[in-house]
Amino acid sequence: MHPAERLLMGPGPSPVPQRVLRALGSPTLGHLDPQYLTIMDQVCEMLRQVFRTSNPLTFPVSGTGMAGMECIAVNLVEPGDEVIVAVNGVFGTRMKDVMERCGAVVHALECPWGETFSHEQIAAALAAHPKAKVLGIVQAETSTGAHQPIEGISTLTRDHGALLVVDAVTSLGGHELRVDDWGIDAIYSGTQKCLSCPPGLSPVSFGPRALARLDARKTKVQSWYLDVSMLRKYYTGGGGGGRVYHHTAPINMTYALHEALTIVLEEGLDARVARHTAMHQRLRAGLERLGLAYIPKRSLHSLNCVRVPEGADDAGVRKRLLEEYGIEIGAGLGPMAGKAWRIGLMGHGATVRNVDLVLAALTTILRG
Amino acid sequence: MHPAERLLMGPGPSPVPQRVLRALGSPTLGHLDPQYLTIMDQVCEMLRQVFRTSNPLTFPVSGTGMAGMECIAVNLVEPGDEVIVAVNGVFGTRMKDVMERCGAVVHALECPWGETFSHEQIAAALAAHPKAKVLGIVQAETSTGAHQPIEGISTLTRDHGALLVVDAVTSLGGHELRVDDWGIDAIYSGTQKCLSCPPGLSPVSFGPRALARLDARKTKVQSWYLDVSMLRKYYTGGGGGGRVYHHTAPINMTYALHEALTIVLEEGLDARVARHTAMHQRLRAGLERLGLAYIPKRSLHSLNCVRVPEGADDAGVRKRLLEEYGIEIGAGLGPMAGKAWRIGLMGHGATVRNVDLVLAALTTILRG
Repeated sequence: MHPAERLLMGPGPSPVPQRVLRALGSPTLGHLDPQYLTIMDQVCEMLRQVFRTSNPLTFPVSGTGMAGMECIAVNLVEPGDEVIVAVNGVFGTRMKDVMERCGAVVHALECPWGETFSHEQIAAALAAHPKAKVLGIVQAETSTGAHQPIEGISTLTRDHGALLVVDAVTSLGGHELRVDDWGIDAIYSGTQKCLSCPPGLSPVSFGPRALARLDARKTKVQSWYLDVSMLRKYYTGGGGGGRVYHHTAPINMTYALHEALTIVLEEGLDARVARHTAMHQRLRAGLERLGLAYIPKRSLHSLNCVRVPEGADDAGVRKRLLEEYGIEIGAGLGPMAGKAWRIGLMGHGATVRNVDLVLAALTTILRG
Repeated sequence: MHPAERLLMGPGPSPVPQRVLRALGSPTLGHLDPQYLTIMDQVCEMLRQVFRTSNPLTFPVSGTGMAGMECIAVNLVEPGDEVIVAVNGVFGTRMKDVMERCGAVVHALECPWGETFSHEQIAAALAAHPKAKVLGIVQAETSTGAHQPIEGISTLTRDHGALLVVDAVTSLGGHELRVDDWGIDAIYSGTQKCLSCPPGLSPVSFGPRALARLDARKTKVQSWYLDVSMLRKYYTGGGGGGRVYHHTAPINMTYALHEALTIVLEEGLDARVARHTAMHQRLRAGLERLGLAYIPKRSLHSLNCVRVPEGADDAGVRKRLLEEYGIEIGAGLGPMAGKAWRIGLMGHGATVRNVDLVLAALTTILRG
């Protein structure tokens, strides 16, 4: 088993720094070892900084990004609850599915894939569904590359009494994201995108309004593995009774996340967001010179979704990139299959070297 | 962040070989990369060998052991189903809880903690609950160290039309376990016990009768993350439509499991089981010379649960082992807290060197 050293420029996983891979291979501690608990506490504290939140209940769920989505849904939704989910791609569609599996009555607020939602559309949806208890929305729609502005939405949801739930899988650590300033009540992300850590953990944060909802539940959370009323005792010692063992945490993945977050904070969040912006602009200029058109109206910086040009062989181009250059880019997902390429500029991968290389490779393959 | 090199002799995680830690730190591939899919296919094939099964649907769930328990429950139980769970410790209790959260009506078959169930007790429970669709039982009860024989139970469950679900978290790769020969319909385990891989994945296997139950479901699986009707498409390409992306798998953890399983099969299952037996006997003889009494009547080889002797300071002894020797052993769990020590001899950790060292250390601390 000798995995090749790919340059990961797809929708994630993103390139992992050697420092993170070395941390991953550190000696395994027990999940109740005082040393490990210190490492985990530091991870939670660094996650608070990266989420820009003071929420005590901020921790990595022991699963990949979709486990984080499910963690928030099972804890904040009870059977029969009305919720609104904004759907403009695969991940909004999935959030709707996940919430329905929790027994929610989901009202989908839809707009064409590649577009995003205005405050007016969101206000109208809330007005149409006065009983809605949650509004779920995707900041970084990985299937279309659309960037949904989040700032200001909480004014609408708070007036309405609904919780604001945000999917930040492809934005955390790469895009501006301010959980407290923006009034986000619950949020989930993944490690394998702009944090440049391998996949396997899903950072989440629950604010005070979300915790109050959790404490007021009438029914048991349907998932034992993701039940925050127990997880909070392990991760924060909160909820009464001190620190209590729940499940065996993924120890070595926690080391990797510790190192990845250390790197993020060494760079500084503002500098990191600025780097993602600059690299996106550099890539975008190059792709447009090549005649490639962006699909979303408002593109993410971390994920660049362009239309496969007329006459190009979608799978053939990706295969040549992989085999000749060792570069992975993403195919279109869902209804976009065969129609889109998704080029990631995430975390450790968002560099001049990588941007210029992928542009050179695409130029050779498309024009050669 | 510099985790100490502990000797892990608790209830898991167990000592991880350097080969596995190095594999863990290999370059991250994309989850749809042909190289990664080959590695994953090999992991599934090696898991079949270690489970001794030909079940096509054998794969590692992307979460720790309890995610595997939950995966089997959410897929095989529908709201209102009657099930029987054999409860003789923390993990049977938890299986009951998890199945209830899936809407099952659970009939608990109980015996005192530390004891195990006879065929007569199981037959009587099945006779008392003619509608029971599942019998759940724990082969290796990690909270008490009790070893439940599984062979022969499927004769009872098949006559009854119930599925046999087995928890093998602390037995897979250390104890005799024959999924096909013993007629087990669904089984879950963890990587951090006798496989000597870090925690983070949960190997599961579903047999043909379990799959038929899944295919006949009237309701949607309540967990999207653990829905086997979708997971099987990613892991086996089965269920129609070829291989379909589900979630981003924990790539590097899959490398580690690949290496850990390779080591298991290099040693050979029979030799490995024999080694666990011999090391257990060596440890048991030493502990009994020290006057320490085993709690379970039929002890696991991989986990040795003894009573904290009269007059000994439970936490103080464990603290000295950790601080002076760098050895972790486990405390009692649940109602056994303060009353038991749990000494693991799992996988890479089940060696003469470790047995004699822990006996020497305990002798010094208890008598010194």
